[in-house]
Amino acid sequence: MSAIQLHPAALTKAGFAPFGDVLEVAGADTRIINEGTTKRFHALATLDVADQNGVPGLSVFRATARPAPIKIAMMERHPIGSQAFFPLSDFPWLVVVCAAAIPSPATLQAFLASGNQGIQYAKNVWHHPLLIVEKEQDFLVADRLGNGDNLEEVWFEEGVYSELIIPSGL
Amino acid sequence: MSAIQLHPAALTKAGFAPFGDVLEVAGADTRIINEGTTKRFHALATLDVADQNGVPGLSVFRATARPAPIKIAMMERHPIGSQAFFPLSDFPWLVVVCAAAIPSPATLQAFLASGNQGIQYAKNVWHHPLLIVEKEQDFLVADRLGNGDNLEEVWFEEGVYSELIIPSGL
Repeated sequence: MSAIQLHPAALTKAGFAPFGDVLEVAGADTRIINEGTTKRFHALATLDVADQNGVPGLSVFRATARPAPIKIAMMERHPIGSQAFFPLSDFPWLVVVCAAAIPSPATLQAFLASGNQGIQYAKNVWHHPLLIVEKEQDFLVADRLGNGDNLEEVWFEEGVYSELIIPSGL
Repeated sequence: MSAIQLHPAALTKAGFAPFGDVLEVAGADTRIINEGTTKRFHALATLDVADQNGVPGLSVFRATARPAPIKIAMMERHPIGSQAFFPLSDFPWLVVVCAAAIPSPATLQAFLASGNQGIQYAKNVWHHPLLIVEKEQDFLVADRLGNGDNLEEVWFEEGVYSELIIPSGL
């Protein structure tokens, strides 16, 4: 059996719109503040984490690279909170999402994000955990903290997966 | 008249505790996730921005250096929302805060943050707008978005200021 190959598209706001927000300064609403010394790229995303038991919080995720070829054999989603990732070092990284109700290798989509682009998954959007190109990369993460069942996972059948192709030249 | 000189102390959780949170992986609660490929440094801070008219949001602030010597002639605070800053490039930066009810040059405190340290000002904590050492530095900012009067400023009298001393060797 051969795996389906998954080729990342460049991450853009339009392409990622069904899944959430792209956090980037390009195209953002800007304001000059602090006596002219700072440019605010305003409201790249609002966090959607407010409920009776949840609060928005900041964490750091330190991701390490998976062995190549990267096999996508599961997906996850967070039913009661959005989750935002922003890279803390300027290396490209990878995003895999799925618009189908139940993910399968045939319905995955991949994006290549630059080291200056973050993303926020909307609630209930199927996505793969962090995927990076460099050996190690830190991300600032804004998500829901608190009690509640905020994780669903789906694992593909034994031996079924997509192979994520990392673009050459990175 | 000579200005009061303000010398930054190294930023530590203990030193900054009266003013808010230090966002750093050192000493954080950690969890291994994503099939062992990611370390989560959990809940470095919770955002305190929830009210009827506000939502938590993410922005990028692009700071530029002020001319040396840096004069601290005003302070600001946000009465209805915490505000978190995390550097997106690994350069040290500077934090000026004040525990007094009404800031003056004699009551300011300064901290030197590393490029891997962020901070969150608690609500109502007097602080100076972004101060950097490099020519330009981006920060991911998590703060309250929405209507409401969330900014107070105090300006010192004409000609009154502190002079912020940038440690040598940076």
